[in-house]
Amino acid sequence: MLEPIIENDLINSLAGKFCRCPQQKNLLHESDSEIINLFENSGEYLAVTIDSIAEEIEAQLYDDPYLIGWMTVMVNLSDLAAVGAETVGLIISEILPENSSNYFIEKLQTGIKDAVEKCKTFILGGDTNSGQGLILTGCALGKCPKNKILKRIGCKAGDILYSTGKLGRGNAYAISKLFSTRHNNFHYLPSARLKEALIIREFASACMDTSDGTISTLDQLMRLNNLGFYINENLENILESESLKVTKSMGISPWLLLAGEHGEFELLFTIPSKVEKEFLKAADSDSWNPIRLGFVIEEPKIKLELNKKVTCINSQRIRNLPFLTRGNIELYLKKLLEYDNELIQSGIK
Amino acid sequence: MLEPIIENDLINSLAGKFCRCPQQKNLLHESDSEIINLFENSGEYLAVTIDSIAEEIEAQLYDDPYLIGWMTVMVNLSDLAAVGAETVGLIISEILPENSSNYFIEKLQTGIKDAVEKCKTFILGGDTNSGQGLILTGCALGKCPKNKILKRIGCKAGDILYSTGKLGRGNAYAISKLFSTRHNNFHYLPSARLKEALIIREFASACMDTSDGTISTLDQLMRLNNLGFYINENLENILESESLKVTKSMGISPWLLLAGEHGEFELLFTIPSKVEKEFLKAADSDSWNPIRLGFVIEEPKIKLELNKKVTCINSQRIRNLPFLTRGNIELYLKKLLEYDNELIQSGIK
Repeated sequence: MLEPIIENDLINSLAGKFCRCPQQKNLLHESDSEIINLFENSGEYLAVTIDSIAEEIEAQLYDDPYLIGWMTVMVNLSDLAAVGAETVGLIISEILPENSSNYFIEKLQTGIKDAVEKCKTFILGGDTNSGQGLILTGCALGKCPKNKILKRIGCKAGDILYSTGKLGRGNAYAISKLFSTRHNNFHYLPSARLKEALIIREFASACMDTSDGTISTLDQLMRLNNLGFYINENLENILESESLKVTKSMGISPWLLLAGEHGEFELLFTIPSKVEKEFLKAADSDSWNPIRLGFVIEEPKIKLELNKKVTCINSQRIRNLPFLTRGNIELYLKKLLEYDNELIQSGIK
Repeated sequence: MLEPIIENDLINSLAGKFCRCPQQKNLLHESDSEIINLFENSGEYLAVTIDSIAEEIEAQLYDDPYLIGWMTVMVNLSDLAAVGAETVGLIISEILPENSSNYFIEKLQTGIKDAVEKCKTFILGGDTNSGQGLILTGCALGKCPKNKILKRIGCKAGDILYSTGKLGRGNAYAISKLFSTRHNNFHYLPSARLKEALIIREFASACMDTSDGTISTLDQLMRLNNLGFYINENLENILESESLKVTKSMGISPWLLLAGEHGEFELLFTIPSKVEKEFLKAADSDSWNPIRLGFVIEEPKIKLELNKKVTCINSQRIRNLPFLTRGNIELYLKKLLEYDNELIQSGIK
């Protein structure tokens, strides 16, 4: 029996009252975007998702208006990519503080503009309110052939676990930005993996984006599929090189780049082994090099090879940390480092 | 030459950078929802809209969590109704203060639930963040036959101006709630006019909801169509009776129920005179009694019959007031009363 996840319980309690829409093709938690059978006689589903940038601004993790605008677009497009959808466009609600300068708003809008152009999509409309603090909410619309839609569920033991790219940049940015004076210009401007998703949707058995970090993503996939993951690749091959440098210079265990809650917006997905070759060929034709992480196991556990020893990660503990530390980032990092220390002390590591 | 509207200029400057989506069927300002030609071979458009409840909470106009939940749904469904769309569902982003009680959240969610059930629709998904102040953002999805879609543009001089219901309840609630101790239980729980919209879309030449109050709505329709409106019906027939009682007991001119910025979420729409009979017959078959307000005139002005004298309303002044008084509600009301007083003094009234 897996221990509960506070976020899942919160979502269950908020959504518990509501009836499901008969046209909706996903259950709660089952996919990164909502999947709607909008037109019965169409060959495509509508995919829709909403995501606000609020806590990251509050925590001063995002203070550059360009990045805030960019992320408002990308976090939502990443959720579309994770279900295999092609983007149609976004609508955005902006809560702007009364005292926002023209320069600030200009940078915010440029971040939004550059992000939609990068992903060849459009802003369809929006709403503006004034408020005490800056909050941006994006809502992305996409479409996907009905037989190609990806969910978080569907993987089987033996399936191969991949990532669209190397991991850790989200957390390397967070520790640089909040805890380091030396690395405070660490570049973070992730792009939604919409192009790769078109290949993934042809082969994958499950998919989810790493918006909350790799371990949290694997924990959610583990719970939904009642299966586990064994990451047997060397961390040096999985983790992004500049991010590794940050952890080394700050004396932090590299695997914590997978544990922190600030994601890199890659897609984690599982490929049935019998189509792996074909998948890799398709990726190669597109000059894309997916990162092999490990494979799906029967036991609902997350296992990492740390210092050549198999370590079972308490992903529930990691995933509940942001809720238990309630926005206190110093405490959050302290607790994460404590867990790492326990692993070392216990000799498992 | 009409004087500029601050809100329109703000929207133009925010959206000015963005390219329009080729699948989008409305220009900026032209409709209450964005109209998307999602599937070329479908007979229907997708309608989508986003609206946050932030300023109303900040101003303590909405402090009952049930009302806040209800309005998050209704303001968005009202925008769907205004384009003649049928609702598919909503997604909602909630920014919840850390210290929110279970009771508060329960009431909020019940307000959302009751509103979606009232309108026979669904919550499709959402996002939750913690933040300093409560902010709810809704995004509603609907669909509409391509040949039935309603926009704010399209009316002609001589068309008849109607409202789905009697006006003034939004502003009567606001003055009761914020400035009266006697009327602070004034009931305000508007419903989106989705059912009526199905009739309106068969006949109307233009449509817009009164989310920002009647005068602001007419001002926007005036600008977009380069035409004016003459409201020749007696105010007693147009204004909702309980709202009239509030103004009488508070010594406020009844016409200000049309001027205030807190709307009643009725639809204002124009019916070409040659189909008026047929429209009224269809409404009557549905046991609905639309309210005749007046008619469309060539001159881009808003004229009211106040005390049996034709008064030309400075709608630009009224519409810019919320921006010039920047959330200071006392100052806003003072300035509105000042304008009313000027009308009396000038002897026009």
